[in-house]
Amino acid sequence: MSSLVEQLLQTEAHKSLFESAVRQLPLPVCAAFGSSTNPQPVRFKSADSVLGTKDSDAVRQQFPQSVAASGNAVLTSAGATINQAQGKRVAVLFSGGPAAGGHNVVCGLKRVLGSGNTLFGVKAGPKGLLKGTLFEITDANVDFIINTGGFDFLGSDRTKIKSDEQFAQVRETCIKHNLDAIVVVGGDDSNTNAAVLAESLFTGVKADGSGVQVIGVPKTIDGDLQIGNLLSISFGFDTATRIYSEMVGNILQDTSSSLKYWHFVKLMGRSASHVALEVALQTKPAVALISEEIATKKQSLASIIDQIAQVVVERSHKGMNYGVLLAPEGLIEFIPEMNAMIAELNDALAHHVAEFAALTDNEAKAAFIGSKLSANNAALLASLPHYIVNMLLAERDSHGNLQVSLIPTEQLLIDMTKQRVKELDPKVPFAAHSHFLGYEGRCGAPTLFDAAYTYNLGLTAGSLILDGRTGYMATVTGLTSGGTPQAIPLAGLLNIERRHGKDEFVIEKALVKMDSPAMQYFVSRRETWATDDLFASPGPRQFWGPTTHQLPISVALNSGAASLMFVIG
Amino acid sequence: MSSLVEQLLQTEAHKSLFESAVRQLPLPVCAAFGSSTNPQPVRFKSADSVLGTKDSDAVRQQFPQSVAASGNAVLTSAGATINQAQGKRVAVLFSGGPAAGGHNVVCGLKRVLGSGNTLFGVKAGPKGLLKGTLFEITDANVDFIINTGGFDFLGSDRTKIKSDEQFAQVRETCIKHNLDAIVVVGGDDSNTNAAVLAESLFTGVKADGSGVQVIGVPKTIDGDLQIGNLLSISFGFDTATRIYSEMVGNILQDTSSSLKYWHFVKLMGRSASHVALEVALQTKPAVALISEEIATKKQSLASIIDQIAQVVVERSHKGMNYGVLLAPEGLIEFIPEMNAMIAELNDALAHHVAEFAALTDNEAKAAFIGSKLSANNAALLASLPHYIVNMLLAERDSHGNLQVSLIPTEQLLIDMTKQRVKELDPKVPFAAHSHFLGYEGRCGAPTLFDAAYTYNLGLTAGSLILDGRTGYMATVTGLTSGGTPQAIPLAGLLNIERRHGKDEFVIEKALVKMDSPAMQYFVSRRETWATDDLFASPGPRQFWGPTTHQLPISVALNSGAASLMFVIG
Repeated sequence: MSSLVEQLLQTEAHKSLFESAVRQLPLPVCAAFGSSTNPQPVRFKSADSVLGTKDSDAVRQQFPQSVAASGNAVLTSAGATINQAQGKRVAVLFSGGPAAGGHNVVCGLKRVLGSGNTLFGVKAGPKGLLKGTLFEITDANVDFIINTGGFDFLGSDRTKIKSDEQFAQVRETCIKHNLDAIVVVGGDDSNTNAAVLAESLFTGVKADGSGVQVIGVPKTIDGDLQIGNLLSISFGFDTATRIYSEMVGNILQDTSSSLKYWHFVKLMGRSASHVALEVALQTKPAVALISEEIATKKQSLASIIDQIAQVVVERSHKGMNYGVLLAPEGLIEFIPEMNAMIAELNDALAHHVAEFAALTDNEAKAAFIGSKLSANNAALLASLPHYIVNMLLAERDSHGNLQVSLIPTEQLLIDMTKQRVKELDPKVPFAAHSHFLGYEGRCGAPTLFDAAYTYNLGLTAGSLILDGRTGYMATVTGLTSGGTPQAIPLAGLLNIERRHGKDEFVIEKALVKMDSPAMQYFVSRRETWATDDLFASPGPRQFWGPTTHQLPISVALNSGAASLMFVIG
Repeated sequence: MSSLVEQLLQTEAHKSLFESAVRQLPLPVCAAFGSSTNPQPVRFKSADSVLGTKDSDAVRQQFPQSVAASGNAVLTSAGATINQAQGKRVAVLFSGGPAAGGHNVVCGLKRVLGSGNTLFGVKAGPKGLLKGTLFEITDANVDFIINTGGFDFLGSDRTKIKSDEQFAQVRETCIKHNLDAIVVVGGDDSNTNAAVLAESLFTGVKADGSGVQVIGVPKTIDGDLQIGNLLSISFGFDTATRIYSEMVGNILQDTSSSLKYWHFVKLMGRSASHVALEVALQTKPAVALISEEIATKKQSLASIIDQIAQVVVERSHKGMNYGVLLAPEGLIEFIPEMNAMIAELNDALAHHVAEFAALTDNEAKAAFIGSKLSANNAALLASLPHYIVNMLLAERDSHGNLQVSLIPTEQLLIDMTKQRVKELDPKVPFAAHSHFLGYEGRCGAPTLFDAAYTYNLGLTAGSLILDGRTGYMATVTGLTSGGTPQAIPLAGLLNIERRHGKDEFVIEKALVKMDSPAMQYFVSRRETWATDDLFASPGPRQFWGPTTHQLPISVALNSGAASLMFVIG
């Protein structure tokens, strides 16, 4: 066997040259933790800040023990502790879609718990917590997963722990493994779940009457879990947007090389447009749609299309028959008239089931339903491409609702723009490709920002456990000034929202704010970007060399940072 | 204005932090050129190797001056020259699809031509050569474009220079700008075009009876321009495959994190499967289809689908309801029965135009055409999903041919696999996402391999011009042992192929060879990769740090290298 073949065999199973090298990268820690390789837990004290929402009274009713214990006060590091707790048994699980840096949360937890405590991994997310599929995490595990992407060390799923039976199963798992604490790594829903679990497990779980602590860690590539300067960003957002930004930057270079294509790129990110805004700030494309702005301005689909087509025509008149458009995943749901039309359509379909089913031809179906809609909605339906109409008439989820996320927004925008461009100036050529950037951004190796941030989140979560806290979300504040371990009382974040016909406690999703510095900066530049090629290619994220220590641009702007450089430690 | 906003404004127009940093990276040069920053041109001498094809006699007839001058002998560096030519006026153009590193070819050319000669850029490819849209390239241009991706400094297009009128236009441009040489940066077709131009411009272009030299530079992300150890790989292949490999590696991590999806990924690369093979070697997915193998084994579509479905079922039985499949862009054309069916379908459609047009319903159309086909072909047509049948019946290019490349292979494979999995084991879940990775890989910043390789190709091309050569393709051999500037006589590569009903001279596309070390290594590992998760994530390409100097794995294997490390200089 050649020596090259031997080398190649050694790269299998997560051991590419890159993965092997990136495991050796040192990670900075907040000064409070001491050294990176031998970090010490910190104790916590109340900070000045007490959290609350419009529903705080109702929350206090529902979460009496959590609120009584925390007073909804934010906690901040009170320095390293010497007399740390020993013998704690802690389980960690990933919940929901993966995000880069999850592995480093586990690494931070393991390192700060040290040899005096035991860390268990829960397999395959909340489902694994119900089933009790736990295993002990070793130091060797940590050395292998550190700085690698994905959630594959544990796996994940989207089970919500809601029913009494499920709560009983969690208790059983806690008792079976004699757990003292659970760390839930997840997004807004998972952290709401963590709040509920914390209250449910507050006392009386184990034979001696003691409870099980629950700590959340803020994860989501969507960036919609933000709490002012207490939580500038969830982890995974930076890595995902940097991956998408490289791809969009590459495509932008392609447009001005090939000189003949538009590329319409839909970006993952659920409802909020944080991802689209960040990628726009990184790459400076001709057009970037922000759902929240469309909703605020109550823009119609026709006006959005017209706006895009005007840019296409104007660029063409300047000799540029190319460009890039970014669209957020949740766009359609933010167009008020689309929502109104879909609602009336759902009603009409529900009221005319038999008549509708009797029709076999798609055109006849569309005409029939159109006749049952108000004039505005019928006109809007008629303006859509036939494959969208077919989807609107056909696909319903198990609750009878349209799955808006299945609509190929990027193709819809291309087809309608093509039509509008032809109306505006038939001589303007418009050839477009569509893209959806999503899954490729969730599990890449974490940027140095996400890698360092998550390692410190893990250290913070572990410290909270050793300090006896429950019902908090770990956070690290001051990301441009060394970093401070802090904790946010989960109950202090809860609002009541009407979902599926009943009131639920939820952590409000953070949407893009029109008056935020990041949005304002985008608005100040976008007209220039539309008419001139001023794009940039941010390139692949680097782990060595001069460009490693960057914050997301939107986070830097919104937090009033003086530069893009993050400083931890 | 905040200082951060000022910093952000400075990143517009190709000045991201990454682009600014990567411009400063030093590039190694072959020892023959002396120093990187002040490289000296080399002279050339005949090497031992003389090239020829089955059609060499016919080529000699058609290319008498080129063949007489070169004797079809390969040239190799004869060391640096002191008395280099001065006052030469050289034009460089990009032809065809963009590939990473094109800018560095221009940089190498400019640096080796030095201040004693003039380098012009041709705007927008061969079309610009016809129109004479040239501009002088400055040292400042070179400092700005070095190590950046894309062809956007010049632009490109796909015009083929074939007609007498076009040749006359090229002569006019040469005379108008008093050119001494043209450098064509392109793929197999563009280099064939360069051979034809070289012969056409050999003598008698300018008033003194002299000709214009033509030199080709081997570019294509497809990797199908390879000539044994004379040309291990075209430039752009490494960058494109590294970008695709990162995305596929990220998706692989996502599969074992989310635990519920298959991802079917189609990869750009035209007919040949070099890209798919390289990405498979980098990432080790469950399935990678190689078109050339399917053609060699005369596999049917049904047998390919069965093979995929067997892997899906087997993995599911081991608890893995996920995986990644790679498919080359050209797959469909390599399935013999698909080709035969499409040919008979084209005939049948052409013979029954009126009857076919009279039918309005798609099902009726399919049934009618099915009845005109042989039993085998009718059965194959009937086995395809309806949207593919509709495409086969509807879409024809201007020559009446089906545009096979428009077929969404990745979706076809998903739908047919789903069906087959259900037959094999109805309990196996199969949820799949499709991807097409293409445009995002052509214009990224070149890997250090592509950056160094293209800079040295530019130095070689410039040296050939100063040494008075014409009708050669620049190459750099010995990529793991310092690198040697060489030149391949283009006429020595030409074959006669029947295209569009007439004989044409062409450079044969290099396909994946079943007995190549890269293919053999893949074959030796793929069954293990199918049933176990042994994937690797090669990560984003790095420009600083320990993992920068990698060769493509397939190139390293096929050239018998001892490691993945390239060594230039």
